[in-house]
Amino acid sequence: MTPRREFENLDAQDPLASLRDLFELPEGIIYLDGNSLGPMPRAAAARMQQVMREEWGQGLIQSWNEAGWIDLPRRVGDKIARLVGVGSGEVMVADSTSVNLFKVLSAALRIMQHDRPDRRVILSERTNFPTDLYIAESLAQSQGFRLELAEAGEIPSRLRDDVALLLLTQVNYRTGHLHDMANLNGLAHHAGALAIWDLAHSAGALPVNLMGDGSAESAADFAVGCGYKFLNGGPGAPAFVWAHPRNVGRFRQPLSGWLGHAAPFDFTPGYEPAHGIGRYLCGTPPVLSMVALECGVDTLLTAESLGGLAALRDKSIVLTDAFIKLVEERCAGFGLGLVTPKQADQRGSQVSFTHPTGGYPIIQALIARGVIGDFRAPDILRFGFTPIYTRYSDVWDAVEQLRAVLESGEWSEARFKAQGLVT
Amino acid sequence: MTPRREFENLDAQDPLASLRDLFELPEGIIYLDGNSLGPMPRAAAARMQQVMREEWGQGLIQSWNEAGWIDLPRRVGDKIARLVGVGSGEVMVADSTSVNLFKVLSAALRIMQHDRPDRRVILSERTNFPTDLYIAESLAQSQGFRLELAEAGEIPSRLRDDVALLLLTQVNYRTGHLHDMANLNGLAHHAGALAIWDLAHSAGALPVNLMGDGSAESAADFAVGCGYKFLNGGPGAPAFVWAHPRNVGRFRQPLSGWLGHAAPFDFTPGYEPAHGIGRYLCGTPPVLSMVALECGVDTLLTAESLGGLAALRDKSIVLTDAFIKLVEERCAGFGLGLVTPKQADQRGSQVSFTHPTGGYPIIQALIARGVIGDFRAPDILRFGFTPIYTRYSDVWDAVEQLRAVLESGEWSEARFKAQGLVT
Repeated sequence: MTPRREFENLDAQDPLASLRDLFELPEGIIYLDGNSLGPMPRAAAARMQQVMREEWGQGLIQSWNEAGWIDLPRRVGDKIARLVGVGSGEVMVADSTSVNLFKVLSAALRIMQHDRPDRRVILSERTNFPTDLYIAESLAQSQGFRLELAEAGEIPSRLRDDVALLLLTQVNYRTGHLHDMANLNGLAHHAGALAIWDLAHSAGALPVNLMGDGSAESAADFAVGCGYKFLNGGPGAPAFVWAHPRNVGRFRQPLSGWLGHAAPFDFTPGYEPAHGIGRYLCGTPPVLSMVALECGVDTLLTAESLGGLAALRDKSIVLTDAFIKLVEERCAGFGLGLVTPKQADQRGSQVSFTHPTGGYPIIQALIARGVIGDFRAPDILRFGFTPIYTRYSDVWDAVEQLRAVLESGEWSEARFKAQGLVT
Repeated sequence: MTPRREFENLDAQDPLASLRDLFELPEGIIYLDGNSLGPMPRAAAARMQQVMREEWGQGLIQSWNEAGWIDLPRRVGDKIARLVGVGSGEVMVADSTSVNLFKVLSAALRIMQHDRPDRRVILSERTNFPTDLYIAESLAQSQGFRLELAEAGEIPSRLRDDVALLLLTQVNYRTGHLHDMANLNGLAHHAGALAIWDLAHSAGALPVNLMGDGSAESAADFAVGCGYKFLNGGPGAPAFVWAHPRNVGRFRQPLSGWLGHAAPFDFTPGYEPAHGIGRYLCGTPPVLSMVALECGVDTLLTAESLGGLAALRDKSIVLTDAFIKLVEERCAGFGLGLVTPKQADQRGSQVSFTHPTGGYPIIQALIARGVIGDFRAPDILRFGFTPIYTRYSDVWDAVEQLRAVLESGEWSEARFKAQGLVT
């Protein structure tokens, strides 16, 4: 039996294998970049044509009601709620991750200015995704707070009595390190801080439970997440926003657009925020992009009958374990350094390596061979393993191509055009 | 010759008549609600399929560069710039009108806090679109300003030395009243204030000139606009944002998402705003919705060879003049009151009437007869005339249907389902 045969056998026995057919994937490509942009669900192209030709083209303005466009933020939010462990009516789809971060951080700062006015620190991770840090920096400056960055391991001890907010991305976009959310929520609350989570690399990738273990202490306070990665919602898909019921009615968020009003169609001149998470809406939603996101989320929910995210997570762990093991065996001696935790419960659904000089050209050479991962400056090679469409044999094949790139030295000879891929 | 024949003759001689074929319009419908949601350009459905199947489905992550997705905010912004009288590189497409208003108002307040720290008033129009007022109210409260509302006619005299910002929508969404932008810019600047414009009901409807008459005084300071009305960009299409070159580099706007960074793909932890209007970008743009918007703007630009917005404006004035005249002649005695200025240079591309009791059911009865206008609480019947696809004979036919609704009394007998249409 060739080594590849073992992976083929796993595919043959995989009860999730049929889910791959729900996606449009180019022939001959191994796509390990679904953590940057998820592929297109097959249902999405037909659905989009229907929305274009029937709902927009024929239904025109009446489709806001008759085709349910006006309900999209809540309807898709309710579906995402099932993926992140919270209730119906608690999540809204709106705007971008960055804009939603601005909303929840603003509201959280207002809560702390009221409840604990002495606290002045927003604590985050040094390698948190830049947009999270940029938004936090902007609010810290304008609101008189200080953004302090720590390494992941330093965070528990840094949660002292000057910290107002803990802001983390559950899975680090560079290393794939998975934070223990419930535990950190408990530590943050014990220290008197609020806990705000970015689920960009975890929602849809693994079971997320914003409510923790059921205790008030272990539940998160606010969360945002991305629609275009593991939710497969299409390029630049709208993001989502959640506030714990204990926080949602406390204070307004400052982006008080008309769709967050208690009665937007009354057209009253004064702002009255909606009850509940509706107040986190702002302007008119981009319907076409939201429709594609709904297709992506629906596709993930199709897996519920096959065990859902728990089953997908099990497969993801086998995929990433195998990838780490094979790279260490078959690509040894070429300078790759694993930065993703080997312990499966400490990582998300990606595996990253550093390379001292070749990060960018190695990824380009791999892409030329049909294996799509991505590069993150300054030295990270990043491979996402999305169990809903990635085959076990893809792991074997990807490592073989990586080995060929490294052995041939083609990456160091080739010239590659400058290219910046979006996370 | 029947009276309708005159309108048929105008259609037969209309050099712009062929532009109607660029749109998908349902059979038998007279669509007078393009000021709420523009209809679908015929090119949009095919273009969207290409983006879905080829760019997303096959190109995947590489389409950010190879299909030019990353350039969409600037590329579509450059096209919109041609419609509002400003230069290439000065406009970005991003987020919603509400979010962009938050950005420009924030930046403008920072400028004034620096230049004229004594001023505390944001002046706007009492019947400005609510989202504009809500966003201004939120910023006024958090930044220590006061939002003051005046009737349109009171604004020149209210521009005293306590006013920091003048915030207006160029065409009022209820009455269709068109402000004299260059003149108000001059008055605002003379009073020491900045002038910020919402172009939701003017961009794409008439020639807009943010630079005024060429003098520094007559130019606007900031502007935002909507993609889904007269730009025909699809439901909830992204909005656009402009800052005068004299203001764009002054201060940051607070929504400091990663795409507004000077070098987003360097992934540096500290925020450094892009040079120019790029700093008004925030998160990853909703590509699918942006592609549809580009089709809408391209369709408008097709009219450039036929005289562009100046020619469309001339037609719009004939359409709206005729509508006002016919309603006054043929629907007299039924309680309709014109609220749109009769003088053509004082109105945009819509005509509105009040009705003391029947605003909503009259509009519903008209819709049942295939004439789509809309209702705006509490008593406004609103009719948008979009010259790029509206025929002269549509004006005649719409008035005949309105007359039939009023004469028959069917509106007062019928029962209508509750329905809130989006502006």
